[in-house]
Amino acid sequence: MTVVSPPSLLALDWGTTSLRAFLLAADGSVIERRAAQRGILQVKEGRFASALEEIAGDWLARHPALPALASGMIGSRQGWREVPYAEAPAGILELARGLLALECGQGRMLRLVPGVAFRAKSAPPDVMRGEETQILGALAAADRGEDRLLFVLPGTHSKWALVEGERIVSFASFMTGELFALLKAHSILGRLMTKESDDPASFRRGLKEATRGGAAAGGLLHKLFSARTLALFDELPQAGVASYLSGLLIGSELEGGLALIAAELGAVPKRVTLIAEAALAALYGTAFAARGIAVEVASGDAAALGLLAIARAAGLLG
Amino acid sequence: MTVVSPPSLLALDWGTTSLRAFLLAADGSVIERRAAQRGILQVKEGRFASALEEIAGDWLARHPALPALASGMIGSRQGWREVPYAEAPAGILELARGLLALECGQGRMLRLVPGVAFRAKSAPPDVMRGEETQILGALAAADRGEDRLLFVLPGTHSKWALVEGERIVSFASFMTGELFALLKAHSILGRLMTKESDDPASFRRGLKEATRGGAAAGGLLHKLFSARTLALFDELPQAGVASYLSGLLIGSELEGGLALIAAELGAVPKRVTLIAEAALAALYGTAFAARGIAVEVASGDAAALGLLAIARAAGLLG
Repeated sequence: MTVVSPPSLLALDWGTTSLRAFLLAADGSVIERRAAQRGILQVKEGRFASALEEIAGDWLARHPALPALASGMIGSRQGWREVPYAEAPAGILELARGLLALECGQGRMLRLVPGVAFRAKSAPPDVMRGEETQILGALAAADRGEDRLLFVLPGTHSKWALVEGERIVSFASFMTGELFALLKAHSILGRLMTKESDDPASFRRGLKEATRGGAAAGGLLHKLFSARTLALFDELPQAGVASYLSGLLIGSELEGGLALIAAELGAVPKRVTLIAEAALAALYGTAFAARGIAVEVASGDAAALGLLAIARAAGLLG
Repeated sequence: MTVVSPPSLLALDWGTTSLRAFLLAADGSVIERRAAQRGILQVKEGRFASALEEIAGDWLARHPALPALASGMIGSRQGWREVPYAEAPAGILELARGLLALECGQGRMLRLVPGVAFRAKSAPPDVMRGEETQILGALAAADRGEDRLLFVLPGTHSKWALVEGERIVSFASFMTGELFALLKAHSILGRLMTKESDDPASFRRGLKEATRGGAAAGGLLHKLFSARTLALFDELPQAGVASYLSGLLIGSELEGGLALIAAELGAVPKRVTLIAEAALAALYGTAFAARGIAVEVASGDAAALGLLAIARAAGLLG
């Protein structure tokens, strides 16, 4: 006999380019999951209610009292409704307090999770929307042997976040993924990338070039040009240019991120928790390992677990 | 009575996106000049002879014995014919020795100037094509009070070159201009740049952010994101995002370039000679001045003067 837990929450991870929906039981188990190319950029004319109906209409019809919670860019100025940022330090309680409820059709309420803003002394502010929920979800699922944890979420705009006492205390964004995509699609370097392939040796070479020489080596704007010159002199295989560039950019992110963390903590971190899909987790895993930093990859659906924890803290689970 | 010098050289500055032609007298004066959108990317199917005929056919018909010399990407693999790079250190003599002659129509010869390659110890190689001719042309026109000169040529791929004893001894490229164009046209930052305007205050703020905190501030991939967050919190006017990004990138180029030069020379340079059109010269002038480095802008047609000097050294002027 299979025991089916009753659904407790409709959890939505609603980002810029994708929408993921989870029907969750109170113990965090996923009863059903769905995904659609319905990120906020793909939803035209603010038709978010239709997108929600498409992905989860039958669930909502079947469970009229089911609470619904969404995190991510859906709560941005370009999303359904703008939710003011919670200020770091922020944990589950601060996010639960900042929920914004809107009517999402047929008298039903959808609650949006706030993003988090971080204002360091004498530095520009930084922001995240969606990653805070993933981080706190992964934290809820993790062993909490350490008082302080470093999370890294690679992507279009990678996030590095320090968590202390179960709250996000500081973080920084890196435009690594967006820059890689831009350079590949539109730059003179992209024109060299006629052959697509993963080339681990070229990736490692890019990582190494990122760490070469410190500031006196000329910086990233200079080093990017080496993807061109090395290919020009056949010192890099043509099929390896994309991997080299990827290594150079990810290596530069680590160079900057680790220096930032070291300045804050007074020491380079010994371990890091990655929240990433498999391909990026492998690349970042290689990059951290090359610096002797231990890597753990968060398992499970961090966003869903975070949404459940926030819903519980907000008293939505009944 | 006007004395018209007889033409001594057809000089072509033939780059990626533009073609400039000069009819030169032996004393370096420009008898006539023309420009066309006939860079090597705009010339289809290798029809370089037609492009040459279009821009200078009447000059060549009128002066059958006129020697013709071209510098720039026309001598690259994507150009008319690939000319092997001269290795740095390289001056007028080395370039003259490396000329490659090709038949350009009706039995007439066109000579192509080699680019220059620089191989630093334990760093990727670097290359230039066209800038070497501009640098040596500007040098020929300049007072030579100093034994060692730093030239900076801002652009799509900015070049920083050290000249000693009238030869280019080392140089480095920076992808500043290309990255600015990419980010403006295709990135999430570009979407913020709905209002176009030059905003000197935002430019200076970008310059300042580039120098903030050294490596411990997180590096360029992180700082780029500040163009977004500052605009998001109305700490930067919407009309200033492009200028801020320009300041941040040019400031990062200076940060990297000056560190590179300082490591090579053991000291930050006191002065720099810019070879640039007016708008870029003004921006880079501001950026160097903010660091207390004196700026001189090369006057005259550096490319034409360089081509004349190379032609003379090659014995082409008769």
